[in-house]
Amino acid sequence: MNPTRPTDATSIDPRLRAFLPLVYVAWADGNLTDDEIREICAAVHGADDLDLDCRTGLGHWLDPDDPPSPLELQRLLASIREAALDWSRDEKLDLTALGQRLARAEGHEPNEPEVAALGRLADALGVVGSEAARHVLSGRRREAETPASLASFDVAALRSLLDRPHEDCRRRLRELLSTADFSYRYGLGTTEYREQVLDWCRRLAAEGYGGLGFPERFGGGDDPGAFLAAFETLASHDLSLLVKFGVQFGLFAGSLHQLGTERHHENYLAAASSLEMPGCFAMTETGHGSNVAELETTATYDPATEEFVLSTPDEEARKDYIGNAARHGRMATVFAQLEISGVGHGVHAFVVPIRDESGKPMPGVRIEDCGEKLGLNGVDNGKLSFDGVRVPRTELLDRFAQVDAEGNYSSAISSSSKRFFTMLGTLVGGRVSVAMAALAATKSALTIAVRYASRRRQFGPAGEAETLLLDYKTHQLRLLPRLAKSYGLHFALRDLADQYLHGPEESRRELEGLAAGLKAMATWHATDSIQESREACGAQGYLAVNRFASLKADTDVFTTFEGDNTVLLQLLAKGLLSSYRKQFGDMKFLDLLRFVAAQAGTAVAELNPMVTRETARTHLRSVDFQADALTWREQHLLSSLARRLRNRIKKGMDSFDALVECQDHAIALAKAHVENHVLSRFHAALGNTDDPALTEVLMQLASLYALDRISTHRGWYQAHGYVESGKARAIRKEVESLCRELRPDALGLVDAFGIPDALLAAPIAI
Amino acid sequence: MNPTRPTDATSIDPRLRAFLPLVYVAWADGNLTDDEIREICAAVHGADDLDLDCRTGLGHWLDPDDPPSPLELQRLLASIREAALDWSRDEKLDLTALGQRLARAEGHEPNEPEVAALGRLADALGVVGSEAARHVLSGRRREAETPASLASFDVAALRSLLDRPHEDCRRRLRELLSTADFSYRYGLGTTEYREQVLDWCRRLAAEGYGGLGFPERFGGGDDPGAFLAAFETLASHDLSLLVKFGVQFGLFAGSLHQLGTERHHENYLAAASSLEMPGCFAMTETGHGSNVAELETTATYDPATEEFVLSTPDEEARKDYIGNAARHGRMATVFAQLEISGVGHGVHAFVVPIRDESGKPMPGVRIEDCGEKLGLNGVDNGKLSFDGVRVPRTELLDRFAQVDAEGNYSSAISSSSKRFFTMLGTLVGGRVSVAMAALAATKSALTIAVRYASRRRQFGPAGEAETLLLDYKTHQLRLLPRLAKSYGLHFALRDLADQYLHGPEESRRELEGLAAGLKAMATWHATDSIQESREACGAQGYLAVNRFASLKADTDVFTTFEGDNTVLLQLLAKGLLSSYRKQFGDMKFLDLLRFVAAQAGTAVAELNPMVTRETARTHLRSVDFQADALTWREQHLLSSLARRLRNRIKKGMDSFDALVECQDHAIALAKAHVENHVLSRFHAALGNTDDPALTEVLMQLASLYALDRISTHRGWYQAHGYVESGKARAIRKEVESLCRELRPDALGLVDAFGIPDALLAAPIAI
Repeated sequence: MNPTRPTDATSIDPRLRAFLPLVYVAWADGNLTDDEIREICAAVHGADDLDLDCRTGLGHWLDPDDPPSPLELQRLLASIREAALDWSRDEKLDLTALGQRLARAEGHEPNEPEVAALGRLADALGVVGSEAARHVLSGRRREAETPASLASFDVAALRSLLDRPHEDCRRRLRELLSTADFSYRYGLGTTEYREQVLDWCRRLAAEGYGGLGFPERFGGGDDPGAFLAAFETLASHDLSLLVKFGVQFGLFAGSLHQLGTERHHENYLAAASSLEMPGCFAMTETGHGSNVAELETTATYDPATEEFVLSTPDEEARKDYIGNAARHGRMATVFAQLEISGVGHGVHAFVVPIRDESGKPMPGVRIEDCGEKLGLNGVDNGKLSFDGVRVPRTELLDRFAQVDAEGNYSSAISSSSKRFFTMLGTLVGGRVSVAMAALAATKSALTIAVRYASRRRQFGPAGEAETLLLDYKTHQLRLLPRLAKSYGLHFALRDLADQYLHGPEESRRELEGLAAGLKAMATWHATDSIQESREACGAQGYLAVNRFASLKADTDVFTTFEGDNTVLLQLLAKGLLSSYRKQFGDMKFLDLLRFVAAQAGTAVAELNPMVTRETARTHLRSVDFQADALTWREQHLLSSLARRLRNRIKKGMDSFDALVECQDHAIALAKAHVENHVLSRFHAALGNTDDPALTEVLMQLASLYALDRISTHRGWYQAHGYVESGKARAIRKEVESLCRELRPDALGLVDAFGIPDALLAAPIAI
Repeated sequence: MNPTRPTDATSIDPRLRAFLPLVYVAWADGNLTDDEIREICAAVHGADDLDLDCRTGLGHWLDPDDPPSPLELQRLLASIREAALDWSRDEKLDLTALGQRLARAEGHEPNEPEVAALGRLADALGVVGSEAARHVLSGRRREAETPASLASFDVAALRSLLDRPHEDCRRRLRELLSTADFSYRYGLGTTEYREQVLDWCRRLAAEGYGGLGFPERFGGGDDPGAFLAAFETLASHDLSLLVKFGVQFGLFAGSLHQLGTERHHENYLAAASSLEMPGCFAMTETGHGSNVAELETTATYDPATEEFVLSTPDEEARKDYIGNAARHGRMATVFAQLEISGVGHGVHAFVVPIRDESGKPMPGVRIEDCGEKLGLNGVDNGKLSFDGVRVPRTELLDRFAQVDAEGNYSSAISSSSKRFFTMLGTLVGGRVSVAMAALAATKSALTIAVRYASRRRQFGPAGEAETLLLDYKTHQLRLLPRLAKSYGLHFALRDLADQYLHGPEESRRELEGLAAGLKAMATWHATDSIQESREACGAQGYLAVNRFASLKADTDVFTTFEGDNTVLLQLLAKGLLSSYRKQFGDMKFLDLLRFVAAQAGTAVAELNPMVTRETARTHLRSVDFQADALTWREQHLLSSLARRLRNRIKKGMDSFDALVECQDHAIALAKAHVENHVLSRFHAALGNTDDPALTEVLMQLASLYALDRISTHRGWYQAHGYVESGKARAIRKEVESLCRELRPDALGLVDAFGIPDALLAAPIAI
């Protein structure tokens, strides 16, 4: 230890005392290398205007070959802190001022050269300003007030708006699900879990939820809208329950109702909706997931016995992933290629018993368990194969096509593909439902993440309480645009459900396209938002009790079932192209494409250079700008896709190959269409309330959604000249401003989703 | 049924027969509305040059009020197909030519007006070309040859290159893991699963893998590089096993080795590396995940008994998420704030027994089970709290700081924060390891998805075999850029491991920054690629046996543990800023920022307008262009970040607040730095082989990686004038071309990862 360096700070030369805080920092922060300290030391030595003793003394303190011991540093710190005891937290103080105070306490007023040297040293150390001083002086404050939710609007009013229609049905079901019978159970084995879910399903059936959509004379509630609302509400609970409920009442009972006729309703509907008769919807085959028109299971008519004979020609043709099949199903709606006297009539549905009363598979029916899955393990998915299984002629679900005793086939619909797609109408309901379920799960995840971020503190400015996660800009940018998108999807899906239930027949095809697109967007949004929410809760988010484990795993398959998202978006894109055909009856296909290219092109031709540069907030937040930007992008993509397809087909390429070559373009178009549609539904929803505070917060959310979309595509918008780079930056800034403005409302906005604490269940969020 | 419309197609007027294929399509495709058919019909009627009988006959066939029955359509189809029996598949045929052939077969040569009417009708129906004809004529071909892997390079040679160094160690471990003892087991309960993983761990220890990195005199292999290679290889197996292995041998035994001195090595190292003494690494606390300097557990020295007394002051200070704690751990390295006579010396590590021989918690130690997690449920994570637990003075791991019997504290490192970060050196190893584990899991996922996509067919051109998934452009774009990035990360992580093991002490801080950045990039890449791979395998990917379930769930926490990615990237960004400080010893902090802004700015100031427009393939694929593009982006972000920080700090803002305001910018910089670094390591790796075919495929992969990155940021590059929009499009096209070129090599490229089928295990991939 250096003999000229007294270990007791108070016995240090008063002139040196002014330098002690800086000396302490030089060693304590540990960021400086020995060479750096040597350089600083040399600079001090070269300061001719400084008293030589002072220079030498300082040199001893800053000698890399003889650094102070931990104890010396501790003592230095103690004496610095002591000298600063009467320092007020509001006072602007830095380490040089503190040093001068230390010197003065010993009766030495630092002279000009000393003050200048102090300044140079502080600069060299990079400790200018009050932050470093606060760091040295104070430990961290342990606790800070968690600010109360300060929503700018009436949360109950927003909740009620979101719960319409069927507010009552939702409320009643939430109450039921909040009872102890429906508490989540963790760590169940697959068998136990499946039984639990069946039991929950029975309870729901007992309360009448299973038959809500069916006619009253079969014990139903005659209210398909309420059924859909119940399904949506159920999606805040365990998603295995939701899927089992959907398979039994939506798909199985629903197919009997929609594809069958009076005798099927009489025979089966009451038993199916009470769950006395658990059933399957057996469409998908191992080899044919998305491409259901090419199913291979056959149903051959045998006029001798008036029976259909069902057969599975090979392994690829097994019915696969069928819910309720592995364990509980007794009956199944089986989709198969109908053949009569060697003539194929396409896919039809048959009611086929698969298990007897004792639970044993029926003769000729082979049942395999799909085994453990990534998620949804409360649903007993299985495979079904048929080896000459016979069912009476009356078991054809014959609403759209009939077979008489002699085997004469008749149908009011000539086209076999049109007949097929009419039968598949049920799938639209499936897609609407999956989209709603995905959004409900997203809402749960965001509620948990926003609540956690409103409580959990991490790091923070020196000497102050740690900062709440939600006060970090990156954290806001992770959660709030996703919250805004969830609101947009909410309104778009409510509108979709309304059209599905009450829309006119002639807009059916448009509705199918929209359902496909919204299903893709909502399910990808779920995957993305649940993941982001999980990460935003750090390691806590990884614990099963905090719900992300099941939310993630259970929703994961949503992006590929009821139609793979990529396939669905291509269907939507084709639909967007051919929607033009209707207007121009006998137009040649190539002319159609040329027309689309030109027509959509016109909409995007004119750009006002004033507008591409305009960055005023009122402009960026205007409905007009936002709607125009999303529409412009959609039209531009449509026009250029038509042009690209036309060029290829003109050169003799098959339309299939042409579409494959432009696949990513088609998908971009479909996504742009859905994003635009969601914005239009969001803007339309602003008309649903006349509460100014509600209107204000919903407008902020709509702006955040729209500007976040534009900002995400800013490269594209700039490349196509729609916005100049200054405007792109302004849009990005506006996204950040909106996040900041919405931050105090964040808790209120997730509370408005109305998910009961009992269903949310995550300890970090309740 | 229309009396003028004979049901037997052969009895139809020969002139009408020419129109039958088109009539069939008009009804069969079901896309036309009644009104559209009416319009077509009207157009035919108005065709004055056409024979009146012919017009009338056609009118009967196209009457929306009397559509043909399904049976009539079936018969039409049958007669069309019969007429086309001798049609060769190679012949270019369309429906109008087919119609004329039908007419000729009945002796009628269609006249000019008829041929013209046929053309008009075909146009109106949009069925020009041979595709529609093939659609009508042929069922789909059931089977197609799956093309053999046609790798352009020697797969074994690439595998060997990837396996260096420690090729032998990897091979031996893979053989061991491929034995039946290590078969995966599905559906285990948590207790059973934990025991299975412990048993696997013991087997590995018995083969000497646990002590591979420790000195020979404690039974070790004295080869830290081989230990790391074994860890990396193990990451192709169950990740619970990997984590348990890492906790026991890397963290627990590793901390004894690195933070302890001779007596700790003597007492514990052999038992720890043989797993006789299962142990924990108890650092993280509930309230302090990423911010470990502020841990709250205390270790107070009691000179009377020469013991440290460990205490947990409150719930937030519980050691949380500690692997091996819930069930198997006997011992723990506990990190706590050392206090001696009221003076705090910062965080130090102590060896603390937590369970006795019978497995009962030691007095004063409270152990809780963390319970079920999203993944990694084979690891028994728990919470530990201490209530006045006493350990002898010798149980301080005292390599970097010592306490003598009287309680005098000494350390060769003055700065407590420097001391702390030196102790934390072990964490660098943790981050290197997590990054490697994440990449190994990514390789498994991509191998499964690429193999599946090389076998599974879906949809396809009419009349041909369905198309292989990997022949779809979108599918290639989903998988191949991710494959290229995995190769880039592979080389970057090998280089990182090499630096970690053999790099000079003075580049330690740089290494830490790099490890943080690569850990973030590799773990996010894993989350993203495993998800994409899962979706690319559709519903099959959702079955547990196909491995995505565990790959997803187990890797999910990687993005937040060993440091939250967002926090790590901010550390890296700060490091990038302050790396400039070293060069300019006593520069003021603000000057430093100004300097960085200017310095990095210079690098990006000059843009050659020729180059920003250059789109030649040789240019886009050149190492120069790619390296320059990624460097330019990094420098630009660095310069602008320094400028933004400087502006804020100049105005008096705290540096903490300034960084919070620029957080997303800092993160973008860190990501850009890592992306650039990976490319440079990729380019460097090209020197590791002189096999021209290997060099070629690796260059393609490097180009794909680089151009995909540039394309991802194309909005940014355009906004900053680095590329013009034409060049941006050319880059995007080049990404697609590279995917097409690499497609035949895809199988070979995943096979080169060398993951044994027994470890891959997915039925869809082996």
